[in-house]
Amino acid sequence: MQQGLFITLEGSEGAGKSTQIDVIKTYLEKRQRKVECVREPGGTEIAEEIRTILKKSRTQEQMQDITEMLLMYAAREQLVHNFIKPSLNKGIDVICDRHDLSSIAYQGGGRGIPMEYLEAMRRMVLGSFHPNVTFLLDLDVNVGMQRVENRGGRDRFELAKMDFFLRVRETYLEFARKDPEHIIVIDASQPISKVSLDITSHLDKLLG
Amino acid sequence: MQQGLFITLEGSEGAGKSTQIDVIKTYLEKRQRKVECVREPGGTEIAEEIRTILKKSRTQEQMQDITEMLLMYAAREQLVHNFIKPSLNKGIDVICDRHDLSSIAYQGGGRGIPMEYLEAMRRMVLGSFHPNVTFLLDLDVNVGMQRVENRGGRDRFELAKMDFFLRVRETYLEFARKDPEHIIVIDASQPISKVSLDITSHLDKLLG
Repeated sequence: MQQGLFITLEGSEGAGKSTQIDVIKTYLEKRQRKVECVREPGGTEIAEEIRTILKKSRTQEQMQDITEMLLMYAAREQLVHNFIKPSLNKGIDVICDRHDLSSIAYQGGGRGIPMEYLEAMRRMVLGSFHPNVTFLLDLDVNVGMQRVENRGGRDRFELAKMDFFLRVRETYLEFARKDPEHIIVIDASQPISKVSLDITSHLDKLLG
Repeated sequence: MQQGLFITLEGSEGAGKSTQIDVIKTYLEKRQRKVECVREPGGTEIAEEIRTILKKSRTQEQMQDITEMLLMYAAREQLVHNFIKPSLNKGIDVICDRHDLSSIAYQGGGRGIPMEYLEAMRRMVLGSFHPNVTFLLDLDVNVGMQRVENRGGRDRFELAKMDFFLRVRETYLEFARKDPEHIIVIDASQPISKVSLDITSHLDKLLG
């Protein structure tokens, strides 16, 4: 049986990942493909429990940056081995809202954890496993912040400072330049329909 | 102000760690020292939440070995940075029921995770930080299993197989041979009072 496709969406909050995930799902299903959507961190019972720890607002204890990274990869280990790989092996496509590149951009670029630590984590948890394609929805940081503000919700990550998000964006773009075959940068400031068209054009090429 | 002492207890279940922790605490307090006792994984709000995930019995999802290791170190990162180091800096002694050597013995020796992964984790989370002294309560595996059975409670770790515990013990002893200055092997098959005497004799030397 043919392997499913593993597609990931990356980008800052407000870049429109959720909307485009729906677009990709519909696109693939029209081609008679089976599709599962997940988000990181989460997607399995244990990974969701880890997500709860990561997302909880706290006043008593500060979460260390290294702890945040370890928890992200613990959740990823469960998701990849207990859900993503088994799904792909059954020929099901998996669309994932954030994946390894988020750790590189947020924990590495944003929080400043040494990239060698992230490489070590990646080696332990993922080995040579990687998405067939990653769509990086790239957006000016000010525009993204404004969109998030307009829709209300903010979590611990979203409340971090502006220079944090500038480093996140720069790291995303740096890694996209290093691996243009797998990481497709999409201009997320365009109208939603144009963003969708850019993505589905790439999928047309990928699926032949 | 003088730094507190960081003392850790290691060994298999049934080796008598809890009893000896009480003995060490009493010994130190008689010398007018302030003492805190903690156990791993746990000891802070976040670390206890991680402990809950680690200890939960599950039928739906298997925890990957790498996940177990990452969660152990995530909890350790919180405990060391948010509790142990601040306590030691205030001149308080900290006695810890299990620490890094447990990960080496159980996740490395027992589960077979490559030692280079554990070394990478140790470097990220602990750097050069290590206990002033570790008491390894060494016990024949059969004797330890029998003691655990007699007292009833068994958790996910205790239910693993005999050869697992043989590898754990061998790994403990191997690391003790490599670092005899910091890891003191205590024969835990002796009467409790003799085990306590062996430990307090070492503390006499340590405290001068």
